[in-house]
Amino acid sequence: MWLYRRGRLLLLLALSVLALDIYFHLWPKLLLRISRDCECPGPPLREAVVSLATGASVAPTSTVPGPPKLQKLFAHPLYQPQDPHTPVPQNLLLNYHRATGSYKKRVVHFNRKRQALHTSQNSSAPLTEAVFNLSAPWLQFHLEISRDALYPRSSRTVERLIDWMGNVTVISADLSPDEKALNGECDCSQVVKPSGTHLKVILQFLDFGKAMLKPMRQRREAETPEDFFYFVDYQRHNAEIAAFHLDRILDFRRVPPVAGRLVNLTSEILEVTPNEDLEWVFFVSPANNTCFFAKCPYTCKTEYAVCGNPHLLEGSLSAYLPSLSHAPRLSVPNPWIRSYTFAGKEEWEVNPSYCDQVKQTEPYTNMKRLLNMMDLAMFDFLIGNMDRHHYEVFTKFGDDGFLLHHDNARGFGRHSHDEITILAPVYQCCLVKEDTWLRLKLLSTPEYRLSDVMRESLSQDRLQTVLTEPHLLALDRRLQTVLQVVEECVQKHGNGSVIIKESRSQAVPTRVQQRAV
Amino acid sequence: MWLYRRGRLLLLLALSVLALDIYFHLWPKLLLRISRDCECPGPPLREAVVSLATGASVAPTSTVPGPPKLQKLFAHPLYQPQDPHTPVPQNLLLNYHRATGSYKKRVVHFNRKRQALHTSQNSSAPLTEAVFNLSAPWLQFHLEISRDALYPRSSRTVERLIDWMGNVTVISADLSPDEKALNGECDCSQVVKPSGTHLKVILQFLDFGKAMLKPMRQRREAETPEDFFYFVDYQRHNAEIAAFHLDRILDFRRVPPVAGRLVNLTSEILEVTPNEDLEWVFFVSPANNTCFFAKCPYTCKTEYAVCGNPHLLEGSLSAYLPSLSHAPRLSVPNPWIRSYTFAGKEEWEVNPSYCDQVKQTEPYTNMKRLLNMMDLAMFDFLIGNMDRHHYEVFTKFGDDGFLLHHDNARGFGRHSHDEITILAPVYQCCLVKEDTWLRLKLLSTPEYRLSDVMRESLSQDRLQTVLTEPHLLALDRRLQTVLQVVEECVQKHGNGSVIIKESRSQAVPTRVQQRAV
Repeated sequence: MWLYRRGRLLLLLALSVLALDIYFHLWPKLLLRISRDCECPGPPLREAVVSLATGASVAPTSTVPGPPKLQKLFAHPLYQPQDPHTPVPQNLLLNYHRATGSYKKRVVHFNRKRQALHTSQNSSAPLTEAVFNLSAPWLQFHLEISRDALYPRSSRTVERLIDWMGNVTVISADLSPDEKALNGECDCSQVVKPSGTHLKVILQFLDFGKAMLKPMRQRREAETPEDFFYFVDYQRHNAEIAAFHLDRILDFRRVPPVAGRLVNLTSEILEVTPNEDLEWVFFVSPANNTCFFAKCPYTCKTEYAVCGNPHLLEGSLSAYLPSLSHAPRLSVPNPWIRSYTFAGKEEWEVNPSYCDQVKQTEPYTNMKRLLNMMDLAMFDFLIGNMDRHHYEVFTKFGDDGFLLHHDNARGFGRHSHDEITILAPVYQCCLVKEDTWLRLKLLSTPEYRLSDVMRESLSQDRLQTVLTEPHLLALDRRLQTVLQVVEECVQKHGNGSVIIKESRSQAVPTRVQQRAV
Repeated sequence: MWLYRRGRLLLLLALSVLALDIYFHLWPKLLLRISRDCECPGPPLREAVVSLATGASVAPTSTVPGPPKLQKLFAHPLYQPQDPHTPVPQNLLLNYHRATGSYKKRVVHFNRKRQALHTSQNSSAPLTEAVFNLSAPWLQFHLEISRDALYPRSSRTVERLIDWMGNVTVISADLSPDEKALNGECDCSQVVKPSGTHLKVILQFLDFGKAMLKPMRQRREAETPEDFFYFVDYQRHNAEIAAFHLDRILDFRRVPPVAGRLVNLTSEILEVTPNEDLEWVFFVSPANNTCFFAKCPYTCKTEYAVCGNPHLLEGSLSAYLPSLSHAPRLSVPNPWIRSYTFAGKEEWEVNPSYCDQVKQTEPYTNMKRLLNMMDLAMFDFLIGNMDRHHYEVFTKFGDDGFLLHHDNARGFGRHSHDEITILAPVYQCCLVKEDTWLRLKLLSTPEYRLSDVMRESLSQDRLQTVLTEPHLLALDRRLQTVLQVVEECVQKHGNGSVIIKESRSQAVPTRVQQRAV
């Protein structure tokens, strides 16, 4: 009898383990296999809750729909995948099982908590439950992040993700961790913390994906006043969108996808936030529009608020990266950081041989990292972003990993001004990746003119017009400047020591060694 | 011998008393007599240090120079002094001896303190000393304030004062008491305290006069966004200037004279301020312009700063009123105050019979005060100022005294909108002073059209253009609305109970008594 009882218990235990394994492990794997193997195109993903059978389909890049020049650009040999096969798991950022298992657990936990709250409040309002969806574009995006870039050239996930962010139902909204950390206490003596910066909201979607919303603050025709410091400039939602498109056109693929969307401030933020602090900053303006402002004391006033018309407001939605617990990231100070004081100067501003120091400092002894810094500088120069005080890398990929080019809302402030000092890393180190160099030259030809492909690319966003013409034309002008700076380097140091063919974990030659070459 | 010694001492004492009396009492009196009796016009006052002999001259209004319509308006019988003789001393705000004596003492004290500081610092820079000048326009202005108004119709002091404020040498600059009181601590929960309000500086001049500088913050073509609450709107320097001119044209004479001036932020504020807090908020912008910002935490950031080009910035200078120790003032909450919260309503907004309550409350049982409130409401409606939460009166004149119409920088925000609720006192009480009524009707005729006389009057300011055309034309439109509101009252209650001939300390009849009449 005792044995029988123990046997029953053991059997129950074994069955439970099996059930859990099937639920969290085998079933998700099966679903992914189905969704990956499926070749049928399926309807465009207008809602997040898609039938798993008609889910994501991966089409080769050559069939990417789009306007003529952009399509031609992405079909160019320079934009063809070098390795079209699926990357080996160790080159991917996430462990598939851990990521999907955690997703499932979080959805179950979220719904249980929400249900309990709903019951305790005796609410009669219909309860929208979060949906576990293995073909959710955000999950596909996370699963495809690799050692090379945030998304593969060949993947259609980006288009799906952008489409999804523009449509999917918002089930919750919250303040960003930045704003929570401030907790209403801003230090006036700290010049770095700019006011008005923190007007951003995290949106959580029906399928549990997340995006960072930056609402429109400035008319797209407005230029940043010339008296503004770069660290107090407004954050521009359209700059976020445009920077993503530029990064993709340059084939860096280091900006998480960004989509424009008309957000309903009332139903998609105010009515769905569980955060009282966020609720508190909402008000109805004298013109009867729904508005909200940042909570920090020095920006808590309504004149710095943003308002819907009466509810809808443009914003940029940046796809969230995998959580730090799954994919830790390292925040690294930019060696070419600017002084965040009124009159201070950093060493790179006064020492033309500054790059020699950088080259001898970890992690810039690794040529790959140094070349990545050059890419970043050129990218920032093109968008006119002077506020790159830090950059991030995924810890997993070490010094070889690509740099994340996110947080670009301070770009595209002034089309009439080219801030040449943003190129300091390039003209001080005289280095550029060969691939980058070839692509930049390609984009300067009339056939693939940067402003034209950007205009075409941006036309795919829901918000029109993302960038005004003067900003687009400034890109061509700035591209010429980049090419000129590199050519001057080549004239000075020779092609071989300036234009570098990339290989993994290459040591950086000093300028003396470079000269010897 | 002892007697002789005592006699010598007594003699010395008597001589000292006599000297002091001559210095502080007789001599100033003599100077004023000279300056008052002098009929010669004298050169325009370009510098504050004027020869006492060629000082202020008082010319009759009919000779006021100015453009045709304005000159004709001021020559109209409605604008003629009823009592052209010098007012009796008890009707003047200040005691002549006390005011001039205190002025002299303060100059001596200031120069002594400054000299000591200069010596202790071993400074080689030339020291500008404050000058005691009995014909200083600011002093004349103070001495002419009477029970009737801030300045007599017949006085030319206003022109001299405006000319003086536009030219006189600045010897010191300081934060306003408002900003000092805040001391960097702003309460975020307090919606009333708007950010950006406190960007104002007190300038002290060579002859010890003072003015409040409000720097230009907003282009004069910009309209206040419709989502702004009245209590967070910018303060506009041009609104201060225009409000003074309008007040004079309406013959209220309750706004202290305001002049436009290009202020050198570096030499006229930064270099002459002894206040380190004020010094701290100065910086040089990326475009190499001198800028400063308000110190309060929520506006301490440079994006809310104002900048010179590179040093000069437009501003309004409002003449200072006599100090509170000589002429105490009472700050009275406006019975038609607005709610300074996002959604609150005040009683007057929901109760159409609200005026009956007001009429039974001190000091509005005095008809003079109530009629003054009507003047204020009409003035605020014309300039579009919704932010009149308090008004001030000189304690000396009691309930009969006129109301000060100062602090008008939130007027002229939106030319395209007429805020009818500002007229609530008028349409709820159905009262208007006969004099005001006649002048408003005069200003609605083509011959004296309000926008035309305003345009002419504003053309006399150094800053051009003070108000844009749409703002000037809005004045005509709003004037029509005022006339219409009053005429509706007359139709309802009869001429006699709406248009009131003013007499001193009249009791207010209730609406029932009014009906009986």
